Amino acid sequence: MTTTTPPQDFAKRLDQTAEDTEALLAKLLADTLLADEIARPKRLMDAMRYSTLGGGKRLRPFLVVESAAIFGVAREAALLAGAALECIHCYSLIHDDLPAMDNSDLRRGRPTLHKKTDDATAILAGDGLLTLAFDIITRDEIHQDPAVRLLLTRALARCAGIGGMVGGQMLDLAGEGRFGDREPVDVARLQQMKTGALLRFGCIAGALLGQSSQKEYQALDDYGRALGEAFQIADDLLDVEGDAAALGKQTGQDAALGKTTFVTQLGIDGAKQRVRDLLARADQALSIFGPRGDVLRAAARFVAERKN
Amino acid sequence: MTTTTPPQDFAKRLDQTAEDTEALLAKLLADTLLADEIARPKRLMDAMRYSTLGGGKRLRPFLVVESAAIFGVAREAALLAGAALECIHCYSLIHDDLPAMDNSDLRRGRPTLHKKTDDATAILAGDGLLTLAFDIITRDEIHQDPAVRLLLTRALARCAGIGGMVGGQMLDLAGEGRFGDREPVDVARLQQMKTGALLRFGCIAGALLGQSSQKEYQALDDYGRALGEAFQIADDLLDVEGDAAALGKQTGQDAALGKTTFVTQLGIDGAKQRVRDLLARADQALSIFGPRGDVLRAAARFVAERKN
Repeated sequence: MTTTTPPQDFAKRLDQTAEDTEALLAKLLADTLLADEIARPKRLMDAMRYSTLGGGKRLRPFLVVESAAIFGVAREAALLAGAALECIHCYSLIHDDLPAMDNSDLRRGRPTLHKKTDDATAILAGDGLLTLAFDIITRDEIHQDPAVRLLLTRALARCAGIGGMVGGQMLDLAGEGRFGDREPVDVARLQQMKTGALLRFGCIAGALLGQSSQKEYQALDDYGRALGEAFQIADDLLDVEGDAAALGKQTGQDAALGKTTFVTQLGIDGAKQRVRDLLARADQALSIFGPRGDVLRAAARFVAERKN
Repeated sequence: MTTTTPPQDFAKRLDQTAEDTEALLAKLLADTLLADEIARPKRLMDAMRYSTLGGGKRLRPFLVVESAAIFGVAREAALLAGAALECIHCYSLIHDDLPAMDNSDLRRGRPTLHKKTDDATAILAGDGLLTLAFDIITRDEIHQDPAVRLLLTRALARCAGIGGMVGGQMLDLAGEGRFGDREPVDVARLQQMKTGALLRFGCIAGALLGQSSQKEYQALDDYGRALGEAFQIADDLLDVEGDAAALGKQTGQDAALGKTTFVTQLGIDGAKQRVRDLLARADQALSIFGPRGDVLRAAARFVAERKN
C-alpha cells in the first residue's frame, strides 16, 4: 500500500521548485554568459527574460525534479535540465502568440512579447531560447557522464521537434483550416505531439538522469503519456466549463474556432471518464516505485483537476 | 614549403561534398523518421525540404568535411555533422526572410518559403530545422565517444545562439534602426556573430571530431575567424561591385538601407587590403598542418574571391 502525498505538501513542493527554477533561469538569462564572457545583446536578453521570468507553475521543471528525485538525483542537476525544458516551453509560447500563428495579444494578463516589443524581436527571442536550451542541457553540472547528457539532449530534440511539439503545432494549424480546407484531426496524436511530448520529456528526464533500468524508464514514459493526455483533456474541459477569471483568459475559444478537441470527440462526461482512466493508468505505471512515486501520483491529480 | 591544391581539384571536392550533403539532407528530411518510425507532418516536411534541398554551395558542410579530413575523420561522420550545421544555416535564412525580419520575396531566384507557403509554415519549418540540427548532431554515427558528440553539440548551440548567430541578427536589426534610432554598430563584432560564428563552427568541428590537440584546435579556430571575416567583407564588396546576374540578387542593398559595413568603414581599397591580411592570417594559422591544410587554404581564397 502506498499513501498519497498530502496536497499541502504537494503545493509547497511545487512552489519551491517554481521559485528555484525562476532563480536559475534569471541566472542563465543574465546579460553576460559567464562561461566564456560573451556579451549578449541587451534587447534580446530583455525580450527573453520578459517571456521566461515572472511566474508560471513551472510544471515541466517540476516533473523533471520529481522524476529525478525517485532515483536520488541531485536537485541542482534536475533543476538545470528543467530550466532547459522550460526554455523550450517558453520559446514555443512566444512563437505561437505571433500574428502569423495564433495572433494573441495577452498571455497571463500581460501583453505578449511581440505586442510589448515587435515581431522581429519575438522571433529572435524564441530562436534564442530554443538554442539556449541545447546549450544548457549539455552542461557538465547536469551529469558527470557525457553519455547521459547526450541521451537527454537527443530526447529533448526529439520531443521538441518535428515528430513532437513543432509537428503537433503544424497539425493543429492544419486542423483549424489554416491551409485551405480543415484537415481531419486525430486529437490524441496531435496532442501527444503538441503538448504531450514536452510533458513526457519532463518525466523521462528523471529516468535518464537517474540511469534507471529499462523497466523504470518505461514506467515513467507510460506515466508521462497518461499525464500529458490528462493535461490536455483538462485544458479542453476548462475551455468549456472553466472560470474565465481564474483562467486569466477567455473560455469558449475552441468552440469559437470550431476546433476538434477531446470534448467534441468524447463529450463532457466521456472526457471526464477518460481523465479518470488516465489517472488510473498513471497510478498503475508508478506502482513499480512504491511510495517513491507519491509526488508524481499527486502531480497527475493536480494536472487533471486544476482550475487554471 | 606547402603547395596549393589546384583550383580544379578544389572545385571538384566542393561539388562532391555539396552532392553528398544534398543526398544526406534528403534522407534526414524524409517523411518518416527511421529511428523511431514517427510519422512527420507532410506539410512541414515539404516546407523544410523546399528550403533545404536544391542546391547551394554547401560551404559550411564543406568546412566540416575538410577540417575533419585533416585528422583522418571518417567522411560519413563529418558529413552528418555538416548536415546538422546546414540545417541551422537554412533555418536562419527562412526566419530572416520573413516579413517581420528582412521581408524578402526571393532567394536563389525562387520564392522564399513564406511566399511559397505562408508565414506560419515558415516559422514552424525554421523551428523544426533548428531543433532537428540538435537531433542530428547527437547521433551515434558522428563519433563513438559520446563526450566528443557532446562537445560538438554544445559548440553548435553556442555558435548558433544568443552569443552567436541569433545575437548577431539582433545587433544587425538594431543597427538598421529597426527599434528606434539606429544603434551604433561594431561591424567586426556583429559579423563575427551573425555570419562568422557558423563558419567558425564548421572549422572547429573538424578539430573536435578529430580529437585534436589544443594547439590544433586553436589553429582551426583562428583560421575560422579569419575566414568568417573574409567571407563577410567579400559579401560587402559584392554588394558594391558585384554583378547582380551572377549574384542572383540586387546589388546596392546595403547602401540603400544605409547600413554600416566593412566597406563603409574601410573604403573599397581598405576592405580589399583587409581581405589580403585575413588570407595571410588564415595561411599562418594553417601552417601547423603543412600540406594537410592545403584544401582549407584554397577554401579561404575561394571564399574571399567568389563572385556570388
